[in-house]
Amino acid sequence: MLITSLNNDKVKELVKLKDKKYRDINDLFFIEGKDLCDSAYENGLLRELYILDGYDNIYDGIPYTYVSTEVMKKISDLGSVSEYYGVCSKMVEKDLGNKILVLDDIQDPGNLGTIIRSAVAFNFDTIVLSRGTVDLYNPKVVRSAKGMLFKTNVIMRDIVSFIKEIDDYMVYGTDVKDGINIKNEIIPEKIAIVIGNEGKGISDEVRDLCQKFIYLDMNSECESLNAGVSASIIMYEVNSK
Amino acid sequence: MLITSLNNDKVKELVKLKDKKYRDINDLFFIEGKDLCDSAYENGLLRELYILDGYDNIYDGIPYTYVSTEVMKKISDLGSVSEYYGVCSKMVEKDLGNKILVLDDIQDPGNLGTIIRSAVAFNFDTIVLSRGTVDLYNPKVVRSAKGMLFKTNVIMRDIVSFIKEIDDYMVYGTDVKDGINIKNEIIPEKIAIVIGNEGKGISDEVRDLCQKFIYLDMNSECESLNAGVSASIIMYEVNSK
Repeated sequence: MLITSLNNDKVKELVKLKDKKYRDINDLFFIEGKDLCDSAYENGLLRELYILDGYDNIYDGIPYTYVSTEVMKKISDLGSVSEYYGVCSKMVEKDLGNKILVLDDIQDPGNLGTIIRSAVAFNFDTIVLSRGTVDLYNPKVVRSAKGMLFKTNVIMRDIVSFIKEIDDYMVYGTDVKDGINIKNEIIPEKIAIVIGNEGKGISDEVRDLCQKFIYLDMNSECESLNAGVSASIIMYEVNSK
Repeated sequence: MLITSLNNDKVKELVKLKDKKYRDINDLFFIEGKDLCDSAYENGLLRELYILDGYDNIYDGIPYTYVSTEVMKKISDLGSVSEYYGVCSKMVEKDLGNKILVLDDIQDPGNLGTIIRSAVAFNFDTIVLSRGTVDLYNPKVVRSAKGMLFKTNVIMRDIVSFIKEIDDYMVYGTDVKDGINIKNEIIPEKIAIVIGNEGKGISDEVRDLCQKFIYLDMNSECESLNAGVSASIIMYEVNSK
């Protein structure tokens, strides 16, 4: 089947997936491009495929529909034309690993995507998102995570209750100046590291639950790093120890 | 004076600064918000100030004009309302320092801003932008650099000729896997590190001029890091040695 009409009911349904509300109701999200479709397929999350007219279906066993260039533009987040557009099931939560990153209201979708990518690179196995964090399935988050979204365990929680529950983990807060230089800290096996919001940092309620604070050594001319960068360097340091 | 009309000639002129072409012709760029205006003022780059009606002028000796909320929205990059909007002279190039970061066609404005911020944090004194790098004075670059733009030395060059000229520096390329783990490298005093484009990496012509390649140890499940993150971790490592 080939869809060419922008008024097709299926097209209207796909466009709605740009809104968090519809993603939540249907437990679905969308991805664009062959690389992301490959990753979703390998991880068993690809549910439906929309293929640009003229390209082959390369994903066995997935229901597919051909679409025109105009339709592909319409359903794309940035109005771009990919060869493959996939509809995916949201990921299933897995058990907690030993290296947990807790995000306290990270707002920028690029930052969240970058952090997910770095978490896989540096062997952090679980990312916990506070209720106020940007939606994991926001198209910009999905894009900037570059397929690493499918290779990590991301869970959503009230992080105050979550931190209270994980009493066998050392919980670190991050602070620009106060605390211990991460280079000088012996990191235990089971840890959770909290990264604060881009503007406000870690909320007071969460801060009170952190057992220790760590910082990265830097020039005092610079007040703070980008949140994605500081989370990534901290994970890099932990992974290098 | 208070400007309230969106058709005012001055307003039209300011709106044009959103375009690179006009920034280049006039050697000017604009900044929004008190923090950035403070930084530009301290660094002697603030030329004109536009103040939201009702706020005080806090910058001695700078020509200023009051504007209405509507005008402030119109001249803002994101259509937001700041108390202070500044027009700045572009920065003057300074002499090369010992720690140089060379960017080979970085495209994402957020990445460039983040890299500038991290360069100040980790004592890289000079950033060299290839001709194909996103414009330094792009409003999103300026915003994401968080005032650190004024505290570093950024120069624009044909980077192939530039690397040929700096023959007393050790020139490192960055590669995901090939080369030396940066943890195991003794870094000399005078270095230049090349960071490649987000998609294509370092161009072949530049790659041929690199004396050594360094990489960051990471899980092979992850093909690469965000360019802003990898540049930042490399600078962090060099600064920690």
